[in-house]
Amino acid sequence: MKKNLLKTKVKKIFRKHGLSHKHSEICTNYLIKAELVDAKSHGLIRLKMYCDRIKKRLINPKPKIKIKKISSSISHINADNSIGFVSADIGIDQAIKNAQKTGIGLVAIKKSGHFGLSSFYAEQAVKKNLIVFCFTNAPPALAPHGAKKSLFGTNPICFGTPTGKVPFILDASTSVINRGKIRRANKLGKRIPYGVALNKAGKITTNAKEALLGTQLPIAEFKGSGLAWMVDILSGVLTGSSHGGKTKDPFDDFTGPQNVGHLFITINPKIFVGNNFIKEIKKNIKRVKKLPKAKGFNSILYPGERKNKTYKMNLNKDISIPEKILKEMSELDAI
Amino acid sequence: MKKNLLKTKVKKIFRKHGLSHKHSEICTNYLIKAELVDAKSHGLIRLKMYCDRIKKRLINPKPKIKIKKISSSISHINADNSIGFVSADIGIDQAIKNAQKTGIGLVAIKKSGHFGLSSFYAEQAVKKNLIVFCFTNAPPALAPHGAKKSLFGTNPICFGTPTGKVPFILDASTSVINRGKIRRANKLGKRIPYGVALNKAGKITTNAKEALLGTQLPIAEFKGSGLAWMVDILSGVLTGSSHGGKTKDPFDDFTGPQNVGHLFITINPKIFVGNNFIKEIKKNIKRVKKLPKAKGFNSILYPGERKNKTYKMNLNKDISIPEKILKEMSELDAI
Repeated sequence: MKKNLLKTKVKKIFRKHGLSHKHSEICTNYLIKAELVDAKSHGLIRLKMYCDRIKKRLINPKPKIKIKKISSSISHINADNSIGFVSADIGIDQAIKNAQKTGIGLVAIKKSGHFGLSSFYAEQAVKKNLIVFCFTNAPPALAPHGAKKSLFGTNPICFGTPTGKVPFILDASTSVINRGKIRRANKLGKRIPYGVALNKAGKITTNAKEALLGTQLPIAEFKGSGLAWMVDILSGVLTGSSHGGKTKDPFDDFTGPQNVGHLFITINPKIFVGNNFIKEIKKNIKRVKKLPKAKGFNSILYPGERKNKTYKMNLNKDISIPEKILKEMSELDAI
Repeated sequence: MKKNLLKTKVKKIFRKHGLSHKHSEICTNYLIKAELVDAKSHGLIRLKMYCDRIKKRLINPKPKIKIKKISSSISHINADNSIGFVSADIGIDQAIKNAQKTGIGLVAIKKSGHFGLSSFYAEQAVKKNLIVFCFTNAPPALAPHGAKKSLFGTNPICFGTPTGKVPFILDASTSVINRGKIRRANKLGKRIPYGVALNKAGKITTNAKEALLGTQLPIAEFKGSGLAWMVDILSGVLTGSSHGGKTKDPFDDFTGPQNVGHLFITINPKIFVGNNFIKEIKKNIKRVKKLPKAKGFNSILYPGERKNKTYKMNLNKDISIPEKILKEMSELDAI
């Protein structure tokens, strides 16, 4: 489908579900951007879920989002159960302003929901020449080290920095693979790789449905488990949101709002070394890229480079949408 | 050896090498603390290295450490090539003060050296009821994803938070195992585990010496590589220190000071939710601990708990020191 046509259709669906013109636009742009960077697990496959939650008022279509100023650096946002895209969009904007004013920004968001890819928000800060961390928690998917039941989300660690060229954006979930990829495999009837998830009995499975009922494996055992725990504390406990396995699964749990938390930290990279920051990071990247390559590699990419290439490659192409999702879209449009 | 006797001996060695009474005390305490938490790779095995570097004036025994105030939250420290323990000790103290004053502290340290375990500094902030990140870079040990030559250090991610009980302190290097462990195996003639390092030709090796000449493997492939890169940017590029493979190896490279960089971020956890923070983190930990245990686990520990137990267990015991290190100590004392 042509991108502009798709945009019009998706926006209309959000409008029909009660979102304002502006919020519909924000959500549509992020969903389509996920398609453009080939993060399809965070794209249109989620549209029906968002709409279902809006219909049940588990996502508030007309949120009264409040920004509480704690200092010129620190803000606390109550998202009033808005769709995650909207509150995170407001949050990163505030974090950017705070860092521009004082050198460092810290913004906590509570009562939010799934916001798509962390890298979308990191990218905005980087484009304003800031270093940024984005943390968010997520529904149980990962067993803590030593447990056989899921409790942590796939809780990504997202870090971005300007480079003078394409933004450096690391967006690493603490699970071996993203939960969205398992969900998508399940929806499309595909198998998942070996060694990324356990079934309910604690055995390795390649069946996506079994994996969703079981638990995913964290990266690097206790280290990945510890990093997922850190993200849960920063996004959940610190912000005043759900945590410790209480974040609701947006697809399966309709007993209440998700109450996801996000935490953004922004830093002006010039505060310590001025314009040398860009000069030095360029040197840094150059040194890495010049290293002798491992077998199977023609070049060394920094985090964010591949996604940027994909985005540019897809930007003027039609977006291919599976039949199943097209059907969902026409049903959502028919209400 | 009795702890107090050991303390006296080590302190005397630092004094003989020109460190002030106060700096000798700081360094001695950190070195002995590493022994007490069984992080022997960061303990007395390094004493000769520190002294060798002081003798060659690659570590400045009488540094003029300057703290530049950028704002009430942000400070930039020029460590004047001090021993890492001293500058990091001053740095974390400043980061604590900044967060106590404004809710958030950011302290960058340049021209420093190896500072022992990141968790030592995190612990100090946590004991003052703060959340903390400690980043430091290190000499090349890890090949970036796609390269076959070391460039990043084992660059740990260290995060701490108060829990109302024992501090939660995650101190995870981005390599599969710590470089110090390989060094120690080499010094003591032991083998290293399979799958943690490659030899010069790019093949897996269990020979510690070969591993030191080759490269270590990062956790979780491109994710671990990206996290190590992030730590290099935060500690090296942002602070104005060495980076991109230019941090000198303290054991092998006597061509100049190490110029290691550190970055500390401190956050008052009460800024958003007041005293609820401790209430909620207690709940969080309780929920994780109550999960059904995986095979081979009787309990689930949070990061920092095991080290704390080890420390308490060792606190009143004699410290066992290998013959080789005792000999080094008496030689260092004889100058």
